[in-house]
Amino acid sequence: MKVVKFGGSSVADANQLKKVTEIIKSDAERKVIVVSAPGKRHSKDSKTTDLLIALGESIQVNVQNQVIYDQVINRFASIIKELELDEVILDQIQKRIDDSCQLIKTDIDRGMDAIKSCGEDGTALILSALLQSKELESSYVNPKEAGIFVSDQPGGALVLDESFDHLYELRKRDGVLVIPGFFGFTLEGDLVTFSRGGSDITGSIVAAGMKVDLYENFTDVDSVFCVNPMIVDNPKELKTLTYREMRELSYAGFSVFHDEALIPAFKERIPVCIKNTNNPSGDGTMIVADLPEREGLVAGIASDSGFLNLYVSKYLMNREIGFGRKLLQILEEEGISFEHAPSGIDDMSVIVRDHHLPPEKEEVVIERITKELDVDTISIERDMAMIMLVGEGMNEAIGVANKATTAFRDANVNIDMINQGSSEVSMMFGIKSSQLKKAVQSLYHEFF
Amino acid sequence: MKVVKFGGSSVADANQLKKVTEIIKSDAERKVIVVSAPGKRHSKDSKTTDLLIALGESIQVNVQNQVIYDQVINRFASIIKELELDEVILDQIQKRIDDSCQLIKTDIDRGMDAIKSCGEDGTALILSALLQSKELESSYVNPKEAGIFVSDQPGGALVLDESFDHLYELRKRDGVLVIPGFFGFTLEGDLVTFSRGGSDITGSIVAAGMKVDLYENFTDVDSVFCVNPMIVDNPKELKTLTYREMRELSYAGFSVFHDEALIPAFKERIPVCIKNTNNPSGDGTMIVADLPEREGLVAGIASDSGFLNLYVSKYLMNREIGFGRKLLQILEEEGISFEHAPSGIDDMSVIVRDHHLPPEKEEVVIERITKELDVDTISIERDMAMIMLVGEGMNEAIGVANKATTAFRDANVNIDMINQGSSEVSMMFGIKSSQLKKAVQSLYHEFF
Repeated sequence: MKVVKFGGSSVADANQLKKVTEIIKSDAERKVIVVSAPGKRHSKDSKTTDLLIALGESIQVNVQNQVIYDQVINRFASIIKELELDEVILDQIQKRIDDSCQLIKTDIDRGMDAIKSCGEDGTALILSALLQSKELESSYVNPKEAGIFVSDQPGGALVLDESFDHLYELRKRDGVLVIPGFFGFTLEGDLVTFSRGGSDITGSIVAAGMKVDLYENFTDVDSVFCVNPMIVDNPKELKTLTYREMRELSYAGFSVFHDEALIPAFKERIPVCIKNTNNPSGDGTMIVADLPEREGLVAGIASDSGFLNLYVSKYLMNREIGFGRKLLQILEEEGISFEHAPSGIDDMSVIVRDHHLPPEKEEVVIERITKELDVDTISIERDMAMIMLVGEGMNEAIGVANKATTAFRDANVNIDMINQGSSEVSMMFGIKSSQLKKAVQSLYHEFF
Repeated sequence: MKVVKFGGSSVADANQLKKVTEIIKSDAERKVIVVSAPGKRHSKDSKTTDLLIALGESIQVNVQNQVIYDQVINRFASIIKELELDEVILDQIQKRIDDSCQLIKTDIDRGMDAIKSCGEDGTALILSALLQSKELESSYVNPKEAGIFVSDQPGGALVLDESFDHLYELRKRDGVLVIPGFFGFTLEGDLVTFSRGGSDITGSIVAAGMKVDLYENFTDVDSVFCVNPMIVDNPKELKTLTYREMRELSYAGFSVFHDEALIPAFKERIPVCIKNTNNPSGDGTMIVADLPEREGLVAGIASDSGFLNLYVSKYLMNREIGFGRKLLQILEEEGISFEHAPSGIDDMSVIVRDHHLPPEKEEVVIERITKELDVDTISIERDMAMIMLVGEGMNEAIGVANKATTAFRDANVNIDMINQGSSEVSMMFGIKSSQLKKAVQSLYHEFF
């Protein structure tokens, strides 16, 4: 039994929905379908969810934007017409949108969550009807009926443990079940959405609750690449990677899969397969708990810029119990989350994402650290980039660090920071942002 | 003007004291002499300070050890006799020892500090008389008279800021001044000693207070080696290194110079020269603030075993503000000081010296971390060794990391941890203790 999630580009228009229908029909194991809202049909198009949010915001300031309203309705209308489905579906969708617009006027949070969810909900209604028209037994299942219970945090709901037992009951139902992604209900029955991109989360929750054999995630790429294709032309595809590898890769620039979405699948050890709706016969990329054999030790190279290094030094720092803790506490009190904090003997670096420590906050942080910790020197260096080599077993193998540093040397790039050993599956390098491209290219050629 | 400190082996017997006299006479800049207590004359000999401590401990249990008492007195007596000095000096020394023995009976802390200081004090009295007998104007200066004021922490005094102005006044005095090392006086006039090896501290304090041009530290080695000579045969000698380099080297196995002792000299930027009493014409090793040119980038390779790695992992750790700080706080509350704490995305390692986290404390630490931080996995791996490559400017140069990792690969040694970038002058590698020797040898051959 499989849970299959289709992303925004996979349900962007009637043609894409026909492909989705074929994919579902081709495998009887595809029991539960989770759908996103219609995404972009071309690069200048708007996502339905963005339109719905803009519509909601116009109502908040008491001037409902009729142009946007018509765009949304027309979008669903044209899909329904092209697929030759009953127009009663459009009425249902329109009624939900109208009700949400009314709700915004009395309760902004609830109303906005309601209107944001209309894209996924409409897609699920349409797809379910389409499958029936193709003589496949199918039903639309609302998240409330499915039992997706969430915390009452508008726009950032977290799943409640109660959900999983309810979801297991879905196994007993006949036919294909189509569930809209992105939202759930509080125990009191109010609709609340997950964070943006949350259809991945719905799919993962349903897969975990139903304890299925596979969670398929259809998107618009054939597979996960081992390096950013904007930096390296035609990079190698990744056939299999582990949850941990996916997580480390997505940290630094890999945005294939919603970070938080992996958790439910990870906890139940349900494999995840990333596939392409436009090329469903391709192998895709499998994300699993334990890695089967792999050629080479490095799975992928992730990279991201926009980091800064807060550096402090103090003579005899390492004799001072609590120094590191106090430094981190000052950052915590100032609301600054940090990424890494490698420390030497009399020195400590704290790597922070640029936007977590904006220039206007620099002064107070420097002043507090200087005063409260009596440091000898303190400096902040921006424009840092991080490169992560990721691969299970990599750090137990002799020579990986040497191959990596050879690549940096060959590219004539100085390494400002190396952090190896804290993670079992990755090795991290800090360099100047301006040298990121040539460093990644050199690493790719060294390892692949 | 120079402050010159002679260590225990340099004043171990009459013959050594004659060498010391020649060294002082050969350079009119050698204004202030700081001396240790007589050290070992051969490998099976006892240090005077160890004898004095044993004597004091016997009095604490009310059975004064007359054999030890006689050993100490005879040691000074034979030096005085061989140098043909006035026997009244021996009476002075014996009176101080007797007074200290009496004091122990009423005040153990004060008495023990007093008896421990008798070795340095006796040496200073003898050397001063010896210089006079060689027609050099000289006087014994007691630390109280010199103005070495310290905190009231028996056996672990810290210098008070008041001292430095007083010490500057010594510049006005005529002749060579001989000061016993290792102790100072509280503002109330009580004698208190520094931590063991504290004559280095006295020398550094006096050098800083008097703002001299050089602090010479005479010991029994020609210079600092760039690597442990127990691991590599006939290693290269270090001509010059910076305070920061010395500090990082002494962290992991280099024990030439008392850690804490560098601070006063460092603050006043007074260069320190390590020289050999038995080969005073040698260049020795200079420790300076700013490095002149040097061949090669790496100054030295330090190494030490006896570390452990406390590893924790938790899915989505890096989303949890305060995780790192909380982990360090638990260790702090349990009285465990840590060395480094490199962190990954979902993982964090804390490197601790073995003896700071004894096996009997493991259980409570693991339980607290597991419970309070809800981690996914936690483990403690002992038998780790650390290797530090140290050199100013090293981390701005391309290719150093590559040369280092080449050495590890060639020695077939897996690197468990790399920490580069937190310190500007060092790069740190964690490996298994059993592989330490071959790794260091390989690094030496790669860099020297």
